[in-house]
Amino acid sequence: MRPRVAVLGATGRMGAEAVAAVEAAADMDLVARLGSKDSLESVVDAGATHVVDLTVPGSTEANVRFAVEHGLHAVVGTTGWDESRRGRLEDLLARHTGVGVLIAPNFALGSVLATAFAATAARYFESAEIIELHHPDKADAPSGTAARTAELMTRSRSEAGREAMPDATESGLDGARGAIVGDVPVHSVRLRGLVAHQEVLFGGPGEQLTIRHDSFDRASFMPGVLLGLRTVASRPGLAYGLDAYLDLGA
Amino acid sequence: MRPRVAVLGATGRMGAEAVAAVEAAADMDLVARLGSKDSLESVVDAGATHVVDLTVPGSTEANVRFAVEHGLHAVVGTTGWDESRRGRLEDLLARHTGVGVLIAPNFALGSVLATAFAATAARYFESAEIIELHHPDKADAPSGTAARTAELMTRSRSEAGREAMPDATESGLDGARGAIVGDVPVHSVRLRGLVAHQEVLFGGPGEQLTIRHDSFDRASFMPGVLLGLRTVASRPGLAYGLDAYLDLGA
Amino acid sequence: MRPRVAVLGATGRMGAEAVAAVEAAADMDLVARLGSKDSLESVVDAGATHVVDLTVPGSTEANVRFAVEHGLHAVVGTTGWDESRRGRLEDLLARHTGVGVLIAPNFALGSVLATAFAATAARYFESAEIIELHHPDKADAPSGTAARTAELMTRSRSEAGREAMPDATESGLDGARGAIVGDVPVHSVRLRGLVAHQEVLFGGPGEQLTIRHDSFDRASFMPGVLLGLRTVASRPGLAYGLDAYLDLGA
Amino acid sequence: MRPRVAVLGATGRMGAEAVAAVEAAADMDLVARLGSKDSLESVVDAGATHVVDLTVPGSTEANVRFAVEHGLHAVVGTTGWDESRRGRLEDLLARHTGVGVLIAPNFALGSVLATAFAATAARYFESAEIIELHHPDKADAPSGTAARTAELMTRSRSEAGREAMPDATESGLDGARGAIVGDVPVHSVRLRGLVAHQEVLFGGPGEQLTIRHDSFDRASFMPGVLLGLRTVASRPGLAYGLDAYLDLGA
Repeated sequence: MRPRVAVLGATGRMGAEAVAAVEAAADMDLVARLGSKDSLESVVDAGATHVVDLTVPGSTEANVRFAVEHGLHAVVGTTGWDESRRGRLEDLLARHTGVGVLIAPNFALGSVLATAFAATAARYFESAEIIELHHPDKADAPSGTAARTAELMTRSRSEAGREAMPDATESGLDGARGAIVGDVPVHSVRLRGLVAHQEVLFGGPGEQLTIRHDSFDRASFMPGVLLGLRTVASRPGLAYGLDAYLDLGA
Repeated sequence: MRPRVAVLGATGRMGAEAVAAVEAAADMDLVARLGSKDSLESVVDAGATHVVDLTVPGSTEANVRFAVEHGLHAVVGTTGWDESRRGRLEDLLARHTGVGVLIAPNFALGSVLATAFAATAARYFESAEIIELHHPDKADAPSGTAARTAELMTRSRSEAGREAMPDATESGLDGARGAIVGDVPVHSVRLRGLVAHQEVLFGGPGEQLTIRHDSFDRASFMPGVLLGLRTVASRPGLAYGLDAYLDLGA
Repeated sequence: MRPRVAVLGATGRMGAEAVAAVEAAADMDLVARLGSKDSLESVVDAGATHVVDLTVPGSTEANVRFAVEHGLHAVVGTTGWDESRRGRLEDLLARHTGVGVLIAPNFALGSVLATAFAATAARYFESAEIIELHHPDKADAPSGTAARTAELMTRSRSEAGREAMPDATESGLDGARGAIVGDVPVHSVRLRGLVAHQEVLFGGPGEQLTIRHDSFDRASFMPGVLLGLRTVASRPGLAYGLDAYLDLGA
Repeated sequence: MRPRVAVLGATGRMGAEAVAAVEAAADMDLVARLGSKDSLESVVDAGATHVVDLTVPGSTEANVRFAVEHGLHAVVGTTGWDESRRGRLEDLLARHTGVGVLIAPNFALGSVLATAFAATAARYFESAEIIELHHPDKADAPSGTAARTAELMTRSRSEAGREAMPDATESGLDGARGAIVGDVPVHSVRLRGLVAHQEVLFGGPGEQLTIRHDSFDRASFMPGVLLGLRTVASRPGLAYGLDAYLDLGA
C-alpha cells in the first residue's frame, strides 16, 4: 500500500528536507506537514498512514505514542530516545500489533553501512584505527560516531578472540598515538572547510582495508528516511537503528 | 583437534610463504612439505590431517582427490577449478562425508571483505564506480578483481531494482568515463611503484562511501590460508570462495 | 594603504559572497556594491581604491577599463578574457602606470596550488595520471581543470626530457585506461553527492605522490579574492592567474 | 661528461640497490664497488669521477674528504653529517673549487617534494594537520619526517603572519587531537602491513588540499641518487638536502 505521509517538525531544517524528499518520491504521498503549534489530530484528518518525526526531544515521545495509538507507522529521527522511553514504547506496541516504528540516531545510509562494515572487518585484522575529520567548530573530540564505531569494533575483536594490537612505540610525544576508545586508537582532525568525515583503517600482513564515509550535506539523511517509510509497515514492533532494515549479507 | 598440515607446492613462492605461516602459527603443526617430485603417499605417512594445495592447475585436481579419498581436509589456492572440476569434486565429497574442502581464488581477507562490502553497498546508492590501480607491467585492464567486483555490484543493483546511474556527460574525450562492466564504470590506473589497489566509490545525496583495499605483498594471503585451515574440518563438503567462511553479518 | 573596495556584480551569487568576505576582513573596507543597473560612476563617488569584478563576460571589459582609467586597481573573476581582450587591457595599463589588475580564472587557493605542484612534480616521476570526480550533472568529461592540469604536466614532462610512461596493457576494455590529454591519462568519475574534486597521482620506483584538491563550496574562492585585493596595488600591470601572486618556492 | 661512478658501501642493502641503479642507467658507468674492507685508493685507480657514499656514520666523513681531495664529486646518503662535520667539509671544498658534494638525509623524490609543497601550502590555509602511518614495529611517534615537516610548516605559517588554527574542541579524550609539533597537530597511525606513509591536510573555507606520500620500498631512493649523480658536477660546493637540486618553481 502506498504510504500517505505526515511530516512532524516540517518547519525545521531536517523537516523541510523530508517534506521535499517525500514530495519528490514517486511511490508515496505527502498528506500533511505540521509545525510545533499544529494539532496532531490533523494527521488523522489528513488520512496519513505514516508519520515522520523530526521534532525535538521534548515532544517526540508524545508524537510517536499518538501515532501508534492511531495505528500509524512512524519513522523517527529525533534524539532523546533513551532505554526507558524505548521500553515504554515497546509496551505500547505490544498492545498495537501490526504497527511498526523505526527510531534511528543516524539516517545516512553510507554512515550506517560504514559502521556495520567496520564492525565486521574488525574480527579479521591485527590492527585497526579510526581517523575522524570535522570542521573546527565542533566541540567534542572524538566525535560520537567515532566513539560508537570504536566500541563496536572493540566488541567484535573481543568476540573473535583477538589479542592486543601490535605497537612498538617506545618514545614519542603525548597524543601522537591518538585517544584509545575500547582498544581502538582514534584520531580527530579539525580543518576549516570540512563537514563530517570518517576513515576506518585495518592492517594485516601485506594488506590494508579502508572504509571511508564523507558527509557533505544533511541531504544525506533523506534516502534513509525514504527507505524507512517504504519498509516500516512490514516490520511491526520497534526497530532501533537503520541497520535493522538493511540487508547486510553479501 | 589440532590440524597436522602438509603443504603441497612447498617450493613455490606461495608455498614457501605457507610453510612459514603454518610453522609460525601456535595452534597447528607442519608435518610435511612436498615439492613437485615428492610422492603424495608421504602426506599419509606423515600423519597429516589437512593439506594446503598451492601447486599448478595441472596437478591440483589429482592432489585434492587424493586428499579427500584419504579423509584429509584441503585448503586450495591453486587456479584452474572450473565448474566441471568442482562438479566432479562434489560428487567425490558426497561419498566421503565429513571431509571439507575450501577452494579460494583469493585468500587476502581484506580483498574478500572489500568485495563483499561493495556488493552489499551497491544496493543502496545511486552512483557507484571502481578505480583499480596497479604497477605498469600488468597486461590486462581492468583487472580481473575489478571486473568481478563490478559484476557482483551490477547484480546487487539489479536485485534492488536500481535504475541507471545518473550521468549528464554530453561532450568529452573517449575513455574519460572509463570502461563499463555490467553497469559500473571501471577506471584502471597504472603507476610505477604500485602493487595492487582497488577503490570502490559510492555516491548518494550529500554523502560518499569509499571501500579501498591495498595489497602490498603476497604475505596478505597467509591469514586467509590459516583461517581456512582452522575452519575447514567443521565445514564438510565443498566451499568455493573464502567469504563462505567469513561472518559477514554486522 | 587600506583598500577601499567596490564589488561589481554584488547581487550575483559570487558577488554576494565577495561582499560578505570583504566586510568580514579586518584590513579593508567595503565602500560600494553595484548591481547590473548601477552606474560605474558611483564607484568613484564612493572613494573606492579597488574594484572586484564578478559580473558577466559582456560587461567585464568595460568595467575593468573604467577602473583603470580612474586609477583603481582591479581583481577580476569574470570569464571571457581571451587573448585579444587581455592585449587591449595591457595597452591601456601601459598608459596608466602604477595601476594593477589581476584576472584569475580560478580563485581557489587549493586548486591553484595543486595545479602548480602537479606541474612541478611531473618532471620527476615515470608515471602520472589524473582522477577527477564531480557530481553527475556535469556535462563535460574530463573537466576543464583536469585538462589544463594534464597539459601543464605534459609540458613539464617534455621539458624534463621524460620518456613515454610505462604501460604494458595488452588486452582490456575500451576506456579502462582513461582519456589521454597530452600524454597524461585522465579518468572522470561522476557520483551523486560530490561537488568538485581532483587527484593527481605520481609513481616512481617504490613510491607514490598524491596531490588532491576537494572543492566543497564556492566559499573557497574568497581567500583568493582577498589575497588579490591585498596584493594588486603592489603589482602594477596585468597579472593573469592567481599563481602570479603566490610564493611557490619552498 | 659521462659520470664514472664508484659506490662505497656496495655490500649493504642500500649500496646494492645503488649498484644496480647505476648499472641500469644509460648515461653513466659503474667503475667500482667497495665494501668496508676495500681501499679507497681503488676508486682512483678505477678512474672514477663520482662517488656514492652509502656507508656508516663512522666512515662517511673520511670517505667524502678523500673524494674531494682527489677531485671527485660525491653524493652522500649516509647519516651523521651534523653541523660541525658540514662546516669542516665546506672549508675543504673552499680549497677544492669545482668539486660538488650533495648530502641528503632523504633521497626519495616524492618525499622531498611532498615536504617542500607542504611548507609552501602552509602559508595559505587556516588549518593544517599531519597524519603519518607506519608499520607497528616503529619505535618513535611521531616519525622524524612528520616532525620535520611540521617544523617547516610552522615556520611558513609564522612568516606568513598566520594566526593560531581554529579549534573549538572543549571536551574530549586525551590524545584525540594528536601531538602538537610547532603549531601543527600530528597524528601517528601504526598498522600491520604498512611501510611508511604521510598525509598533510590543509583546510580553508569550502576547500581541502591533501599532499600524500607513500613509500613502499627502498627502491624509492634510487631516482634521487641518480638525479644527484647527474647534477653534482655542475654544482660546486656543498648542497644539503636533495631539494637544493630540484626545480620547485611552477
